[in-house]
Amino acid sequence: MRFLINFSYDGSNYKGYATQAHKNTIQDEVERVLSVICKKTVVTYGTSRTDSKVHSLDSYLVCDIDLNITEQALKKAINTLINDDILVKKINIVHDDYFPRFDVESKTYKYVVSTQKDPFSVTYKYYYPKKVDMVKMKEASKYLIGRHDFTSFCNTKTNTDDMIREIYDIKILKENDDIIIYITGNGFLYNMVRIIVGSLLSISSSSEKAYHMKEILEAKDRKVAFFTVPGNGLYLYETKLKTEIKGE
Amino acid sequence: MRFLINFSYDGSNYKGYATQAHKNTIQDEVERVLSVICKKTVVTYGTSRTDSKVHSLDSYLVCDIDLNITEQALKKAINTLINDDILVKKINIVHDDYFPRFDVESKTYKYVVSTQKDPFSVTYKYYYPKKVDMVKMKEASKYLIGRHDFTSFCNTKTNTDDMIREIYDIKILKENDDIIIYITGNGFLYNMVRIIVGSLLSISSSSEKAYHMKEILEAKDRKVAFFTVPGNGLYLYETKLKTEIKGE
Repeated sequence: MRFLINFSYDGSNYKGYATQAHKNTIQDEVERVLSVICKKTVVTYGTSRTDSKVHSLDSYLVCDIDLNITEQALKKAINTLINDDILVKKINIVHDDYFPRFDVESKTYKYVVSTQKDPFSVTYKYYYPKKVDMVKMKEASKYLIGRHDFTSFCNTKTNTDDMIREIYDIKILKENDDIIIYITGNGFLYNMVRIIVGSLLSISSSSEKAYHMKEILEAKDRKVAFFTVPGNGLYLYETKLKTEIKGE
Repeated sequence: MRFLINFSYDGSNYKGYATQAHKNTIQDEVERVLSVICKKTVVTYGTSRTDSKVHSLDSYLVCDIDLNITEQALKKAINTLINDDILVKKINIVHDDYFPRFDVESKTYKYVVSTQKDPFSVTYKYYYPKKVDMVKMKEASKYLIGRHDFTSFCNTKTNTDDMIREIYDIKILKENDDIIIYITGNGFLYNMVRIIVGSLLSISSSSEKAYHMKEILEAKDRKVAFFTVPGNGLYLYETKLKTEIKGE
């Protein structure tokens, strides 16, 4: 039977999501636990490959398990055996040919910037000491909404040719000493959210005009955009699937 | 001149407070930064030696620095150079013979127990899955208040002979899914707070009577008390000095 597993994780102690040779990844830990439960090698297929240190509040994967086990029992077994910084939230049985990766309607990433040094948030927020113009940041973000070629906002080490993505919405909030940026889209290029956030911060803490964001986008050149903010402030916040998944 | 430095830290990535050969400690990092600023070796004298993974919200140390530098400038210099998980909060110039360790009026430790698995609090809370009787826990804690021989609550590897300490107050609160325990006293033995918390949890999640806490205390034997909870849920919450220190 194919199980769809919804889970979250603190990425602080991992080399990212996707399995790598001799590396400590989220996928390695999930597959280790599933293989213990099933007493044979279990392979998983996920929705999202997050980078080193990046967190997730809402990821999905599927795997095929031959055991006669309920969703609740499987959830309990995984949560008992898995590292404490990974948590299975929901499990559902799905069709044998269902891959959540091809069923994603939208993803929302959240990035947390701290404007005050806080020793207790080093792995959860990015500390940016410069003064930020929130109005300019919101204005600059508007130029990114819509369907565009995001080459300027993609790490040049990408394996992808198709640089077209659609951003549905960007919300920027101030909460106490934090600036919180939510970006929703149909998909994201390698480091795209982190280069967008680095560019939003750079423009809004300098003499650059908000309009410069449009020039960066149109240049289709990574060198024209600004720095990549670190992974520790980044959270995959929500994954919306087209298929309605009932809670369990 | 002697500077009194008030600071906090996230202990997650350190082998405790006190300097050790070839170990990564808070004191090592503070002295490294002070030595860079002063361009010579600086030695510090602190109030509290916390264990590996333990955090502090309110620690003090003194050091002698020959530079012509204001408190504000020194604070800024340290916070710029030091690891992001350590923060200097206040600095004051004190008398040349002042040692804060001999000026402590009371210390309050805070311990955070999580009753729900939360992947984002692994280094900040101790997850305890058993059902806890809060009324019994509060009742058991009352037997510890006052001046006692706390041998039963001291790691046997201690270097101390004097096992007498005074606990002024224990407060136990429930906040959402967390149990938060505050213990205030004139001083604490090696692992004392962590063995007290382990014993409070064990008694209040089992058939033991609250009164058993008094029997543990009177046994003066570590083997009679329960387990030592891990360091990651422990915070030095407040250090009260007898001398009034003005803010800076």
